[in-house]
Amino acid sequence: HYDKRCDEPQIGVVRGLAWTEVGGDTLSIEVNVMPGTGKFEITGQIGDVMKESARAAISYTRSISGSHNIDKVFYTNKDIHIHIPQGAVPKDGPSAGITLATAIISALSGIKVHNKVAMTGEITLRGRVLPIGGLKEKLLAAKRAGIEKVLIPIDNKRDIEKISEEILTGLTIIYVRNMDEVLKEALIKETKDASK
Amino acid sequence: HYDKRCDEPQIGVVRGLAWTEVGGDTLSIEVNVMPGTGKFEITGQIGDVMKESARAAISYTRSISGSHNIDKVFYTNKDIHIHIPQGAVPKDGPSAGITLATAIISALSGIKVHNKVAMTGEITLRGRVLPIGGLKEKLLAAKRAGIEKVLIPIDNKRDIEKISEEILTGLTIIYVRNMDEVLKEALIKETKDASK
Amino acid sequence: HYDKRCDEPQIGVVRGLAWTEVGGDTLSIEVNVMPGTGKFEITGQIGDVMKESARAAISYTRSISGSHNIDKVFYTNKDIHIHIPQGAVPKDGPSAGITLATAIISALSGIKVHNKVAMTGEITLRGRVLPIGGLKEKLLAAKRAGIEKVLIPIDNKRDIEKISEEILTGLTIIYVRNMDEVLKEALIKETKDASK
Amino acid sequence: HYDKRCDEPQIGVVRGLAWTEVGGDTLSIEVNVMPGTGKFEITGQIGDVMKESARAAISYTRSISGSHNIDKVFYTNKDIHIHIPQGAVPKDGPSAGITLATAIISALSGIKVHNKVAMTGEITLRGRVLPIGGLKEKLLAAKRAGIEKVLIPIDNKRDIEKISEEILTGLTIIYVRNMDEVLKEALIKETKDASK
Amino acid sequence: HYDKRCDEPQIGVVRGLAWTEVGGDTLSIEVNVMPGTGKFEITGQIGDVMKESARAAISYTRSISGSHNIDKVFYTNKDIHIHIPQGAVPKDGPSAGITLATAIISALSGIKVHNKVAMTGEITLRGRVLPIGGLKEKLLAAKRAGIEKVLIPIDNKRDIEKISEEILTGLTIIYVRNMDEVLKEALIKETKDASK
Amino acid sequence: HYDKRCDEPQIGVVRGLAWTEVGGDTLSIEVNVMPGTGKFEITGQIGDVMKESARAAISYTRSISGSHNIDKVFYTNKDIHIHIPQGAVPKDGPSAGITLATAIISALSGIKVHNKVAMTGEITLRGRVLPIGGLKEKLLAAKRAGIEKVLIPIDNKRDIEKISEEILTGLTIIYVRNMDEVLKEALIKETKDASK
Ligand SMILES: [Ca+2]
Ligand SMILES: [Ca+2]
Ligand SMILES: [Ca+2]
Ligand SMILES: [Ca+2]
Ligand SMILES: [Ca+2]
Ligand SMILES: [Ca+2]
Ligand SMILES: [Ca+2]
Ligand SMILES: [Ca+2]
Ligand SMILES: [Ca+2]
Ligand SMILES: [Ca+2]
Ligand SMILES: [Ca+2]
Ligand SMILES: [Ca+2]
Repeated sequence: HYDKRCDEPQIGVVRGLAWTEVGGDTLSIEVNVMPGTGKFEITGQIGDVMKESARAAISYTRSISGSHNIDKVFYTNKDIHIHIPQGAVPKDGPSAGITLATAIISALSGIKVHNKVAMTGEITLRGRVLPIGGLKEKLLAAKRAGIEKVLIPIDNKRDIEKISEEILTGLTIIYVRNMDEVLKEALIKETKDASK
Repeated sequence: HYDKRCDEPQIGVVRGLAWTEVGGDTLSIEVNVMPGTGKFEITGQIGDVMKESARAAISYTRSISGSHNIDKVFYTNKDIHIHIPQGAVPKDGPSAGITLATAIISALSGIKVHNKVAMTGEITLRGRVLPIGGLKEKLLAAKRAGIEKVLIPIDNKRDIEKISEEILTGLTIIYVRNMDEVLKEALIKETKDASK
Repeated sequence: HYDKRCDEPQIGVVRGLAWTEVGGDTLSIEVNVMPGTGKFEITGQIGDVMKESARAAISYTRSISGSHNIDKVFYTNKDIHIHIPQGAVPKDGPSAGITLATAIISALSGIKVHNKVAMTGEITLRGRVLPIGGLKEKLLAAKRAGIEKVLIPIDNKRDIEKISEEILTGLTIIYVRNMDEVLKEALIKETKDASK
Repeated sequence: HYDKRCDEPQIGVVRGLAWTEVGGDTLSIEVNVMPGTGKFEITGQIGDVMKESARAAISYTRSISGSHNIDKVFYTNKDIHIHIPQGAVPKDGPSAGITLATAIISALSGIKVHNKVAMTGEITLRGRVLPIGGLKEKLLAAKRAGIEKVLIPIDNKRDIEKISEEILTGLTIIYVRNMDEVLKEALIKETKDASK
Repeated sequence: HYDKRCDEPQIGVVRGLAWTEVGGDTLSIEVNVMPGTGKFEITGQIGDVMKESARAAISYTRSISGSHNIDKVFYTNKDIHIHIPQGAVPKDGPSAGITLATAIISALSGIKVHNKVAMTGEITLRGRVLPIGGLKEKLLAAKRAGIEKVLIPIDNKRDIEKISEEILTGLTIIYVRNMDEVLKEALIKETKDASK
Repeated sequence: HYDKRCDEPQIGVVRGLAWTEVGGDTLSIEVNVMPGTGKFEITGQIGDVMKESARAAISYTRSISGSHNIDKVFYTNKDIHIHIPQGAVPKDGPSAGITLATAIISALSGIKVHNKVAMTGEITLRGRVLPIGGLKEKLLAAKRAGIEKVLIPIDNKRDIEKISEEILTGLTIIYVRNMDEVLKEALIKETKDASK
């Protein structure tokens, strides 16, 4: 099934954990960065809260441009398209925030993302990671999709402690405070050039 | 009836299989590429999921421009109009994704499309082909329209195996994983110049 | 009554047959082409399906510009306004497609349109003429308006064969396959210069 | 009461007869033409049919620019604002068409309009005057407002013939076929320069 | 309470009388004029009728620019922001028209407005003052706010005559016909330079 | 919990008190100022009244640019993004006005904001602070979040006097009349350069 983790690390593709109509679910977030004039679009039946998360993720990325080989003026000479497949399934909520940011940063920097990692967490403009809900169902979905490591907001630690060992077995849980910690876990290494 | 396959291969016209108000149906997707400034429009009472599929198809096409004789900056010097006739019939869903991409690529490259081929499948920004629903009804519609060969997402293979021989007789089913495989089956050959 | 045919051939005015709130009806479609920057507007309480027909008619016209004395870059240096009088009567549906295209082409080329001709048919981007509904009521409306010749999609031929002789008496029915055939019947001759 | 006719002829102010929430009514249509870049706005709680009438009136005016001292490129170097006072009363319908055109032409040409004239009639892009409804109530409103002469579409002649002498006494009815006839009756004379 | 009259005359702040959810009320209309490119915005939960009044007030102001030290091309090099505080209270209706115009003209000209004056009246593009409703409640609100002089449309004179002496005591009523008369009463004097 | 006060003073982050779905609440308002072209966006499920407060806060800031090291033309060469976390919680009302202004001014000037201060109050274009509602609930929320000092509109003084000592204990209440007083309490000092 296509929602299983990707067979190998890719640029601009990150696995998120979110809520959709069918409950906890994994989402494969794809970002295309193309030469352009700063246009931004997001497709895949995305609700307004998730659209605002994407806007916050872009602003955060602008605030750190210059690092990670990200062109300082990418918002003037690139077009960015975020698409979340299964285009007929409505998706919403703030918990894809850090996944969106990671996918954007990977696409802009040309750095691959670990394919066995998934993540969930709201993002702020300063790159803080805020807690999210539905953690148990998201972890179950992650396991079904073959994920090995999951990045979780530090403020959800007490929720994890209430989840049964059976669910957690086979998953490495990493608590994250901010995007720096997310990127350290998710990006493979920073030896490549910017994608274009 | 106009929905029968075209009498001969054309540029920018591809036969899709989709759901409309009347069930499984064939759709004749037309793409006009005109000198312009990068405007895009889609008409034919197209729902928002299908519109997003068209956006994903265009982003995919931008990511492969340079190949297939597609002008690397077509999104700045061409206008693209996608129209799906029977303009009064509402059409929606993600399953026209690969058909939209094929019609756009044919129109931009000036390469004709086999007129006896139809196809169905969701497209991602990376050109992956995702599974779709309503396969039996779509195949029946294809046969009624005189189609000989149908391109199907590889992840729908198990659905095909459940469909009776009677329906499949006379149809050649080709399983596709990504747009490279779609284009290899659908485009006639790559010896023409870009359309303009 | 103003809906009777025009007293003499005009540029940019074509009689269509369509459905409105009051059933089969004739519509006098007017097109103004003005020096401008490529703006397009359509007025007269036009529904979204008819608006999309007008967009398809414009794209078709762009694809044949250069012929019929139509300026190759009219979409950059002309403004086009389509108005369908009786501005309080809602109008919709795809069957004005070929009428819209004929009026646009007449206005852009400066070629007059026969005033005793009416027409009905959906248009595609390639200029194909697709069948429409409500033919009997449309023919009755045409007769009431003093029309002598009606252009009908070839795929409606079998519908005509079911209509009583009494209704058809006095009307010359011309079956059309594509816009080339429509223009051959509707345009008076091609000896004038482009309107401006 | 402010709806009485203006005390003296003005530029860009024309009295129309239309339907509002309160039945047949006179409307004082004001047009400001200002140096600008071609922007157009209409205010006064105007419904979409009346807005489309204004668009048709502007296109008609563009088609006759050059005559009446109207700057040939006014749509690029002027801004036009149409306002219909009593801004809280919803107004709609096509019957203000020729009034809107007259007010626009007066404002653009700097030619004053007779203050004892009112008018009603739908306008087409070619300047034809189409018939309207509610004639009796509109004439009563005109008399209450002190109007002496009313311009009426020629196709409403038979409606006038059914209206009692008592109502018509004191009103001079002028039947008009097209905008040329409207302007001949409404504009005072053409000896002034364009307003700016 | 903040709705009391300002302690001293200000530029770009005018006291209006209008209807809100709570009945007759005073509104403190603030206008900021800033170096810019001609953008206009109005905030404060303003309904569409009041927004159109603001548009009419701006067009009127453009028609008199050059006088009152108002820059002739302010609509190209200034941005204008109108805000009416108590941002959570919906406000609508045409009766703030002359107040809006006075505040805009004060802000553009840099001329202060008398702080003990309030006003109510619809404005037209020509600067005429049209009558409004709810006069008694508005006068009561003016008195509560410490207003001493109120500008009223001349066509509301007969309404004033029906209001009891008790309400009118302490208020000076000035009847106004047009904006010239409004500005003569409201603006302090014209000896200052334009605000910027 | 993330809503506790920040651990140390930051630039462009200010704690507000407002109403959300859950009653009185603290809001952490973040502002990013980025090199750009004057675009403005606000995210976090913000209602229209709060959006208008942000517009008023920006206009106020434009009116004082030049002071506080704020670039006089920031509205042409910066993009501003305001985000209020907990992106799934709807937020509305005018009471975040002075908080929004403070966060914008901090981000534009590069001056840090005291992290133990929270504030609530409507803002006007002139920088006046207007009274707000729900004061008791907001103060309780402030205490829960570890706030030590709260800025309150002077016109809410009588509301404070009705609140029990128990609630007020541990909170320093500062009454403010205008933004000058707000900034004097909230900004740490003005010795830094503008942020970029
Ligand atoms: Ca999934
Ligand atoms: Ca929503
Ligand atoms: Ca079909
Ligand atoms: Ca939908
Ligand atoms: Ca008709
Ligand atoms: Ca519709
Ligand atoms: Ca009236
Ligand atoms: Ca309407
Ligand atoms: Ca008030
Ligand atoms: Ca309204
Ligand atoms: Ca909170
Ligand atoms: Ca609201």
